[in-house]
Amino acid sequence: MTTIGILLFDGTEELDAVGPWEVLSAWSAGWPDDGVAVTLIGLTEGPITCAKGMRVLPDITVDEAPPLDIVIVPGGRGTQPLVGDERMRALLGTWARSGTLMTSVCTGSLLLADAGLLTGRPATTHWGALDHLTAIDPTIEVRPDDRFVDDGPIVTASGVSAGIDMALHLVVRFAGVERAKEVRRYIQYDPRPPI
Amino acid sequence: MTTIGILLFDGTEELDAVGPWEVLSAWSAGWPDDGVAVTLIGLTEGPITCAKGMRVLPDITVDEAPPLDIVIVPGGRGTQPLVGDERMRALLGTWARSGTLMTSVCTGSLLLADAGLLTGRPATTHWGALDHLTAIDPTIEVRPDDRFVDDGPIVTASGVSAGIDMALHLVVRFAGVERAKEVRRYIQYDPRPPI
Repeated sequence: MTTIGILLFDGTEELDAVGPWEVLSAWSAGWPDDGVAVTLIGLTEGPITCAKGMRVLPDITVDEAPPLDIVIVPGGRGTQPLVGDERMRALLGTWARSGTLMTSVCTGSLLLADAGLLTGRPATTHWGALDHLTAIDPTIEVRPDDRFVDDGPIVTASGVSAGIDMALHLVVRFAGVERAKEVRRYIQYDPRPPI
Repeated sequence: MTTIGILLFDGTEELDAVGPWEVLSAWSAGWPDDGVAVTLIGLTEGPITCAKGMRVLPDITVDEAPPLDIVIVPGGRGTQPLVGDERMRALLGTWARSGTLMTSVCTGSLLLADAGLLTGRPATTHWGALDHLTAIDPTIEVRPDDRFVDDGPIVTASGVSAGIDMALHLVVRFAGVERAKEVRRYIQYDPRPPI
């Protein structure tokens, strides 16, 4: 079984969370023999109000979370009050020490950095937060041109929509290229930006 | 003011709705002088359980919806019980007759077809539903290779992730290419599928 948790907190950027959710839950639902479970984990009780106002009911709270193989930390303006938050640092640190693969989308990387998880590592974030990332931890080797950075136990993605690409990479890493291609086909991810 | 409604019903595919939501609500929040409001409209009261299990609280129900300039009808397995549903047909028909720009993502086009809105028109849908679309209305000119089809008062997109591209097109249509480029940059939509 591969258990994946997507963290939700007030101010989570919607697509940061739902891009990976779509990819990973499509994998889970479409290929049940792969044994994947994806859960939306609320930092607090009750509905989460995302950055643009969408309200989501998490499946469980962090206090109820089972052991996780992968955690996804999304970004959004809700990360700002969580930088320096001791509870968040402890939460992320505990997961990382237990062997959970720690991943972030967009400014979610600020929270990984703040928890000390990116020290001396290559990483990326939203283009507007690159300076903030090194301000938190100057030892981070920032990679502004990478769509996502896989550094083994830590994977960070660039802004918002990059979570879709990172999530497909996680499918590659856990189930291989062919499965990831099948998931990509299911969500018809043949992007063609009109401008 | 441009008022946009995204319809939510049980079984809505998550990214079908949240892809356009992210693009359009980023436009709304980032450029308030453009006068754009985006609302999540529930077909029923209370939380909506999406196709992969994410639960969303809509802002309002269809009965409370204001006059809309644009409606987005997402797809997902929840469209299946709504094909043939007289209430849905009436709802979509009323919007269309009042001049609302009717748009769909993925199998949302099946509901537009079922309401008679695609008769004699070019349209697209998820690759797995192309036959279903013409089974509902054989006069539809199906365009399997188009990412989205803009036929004036009706715009249809192909599967799931195509809603992001279609929503950027809507920004172009209502506010021009430069604004759409700015929204695209905000969500860092420089897709790079890893497989």
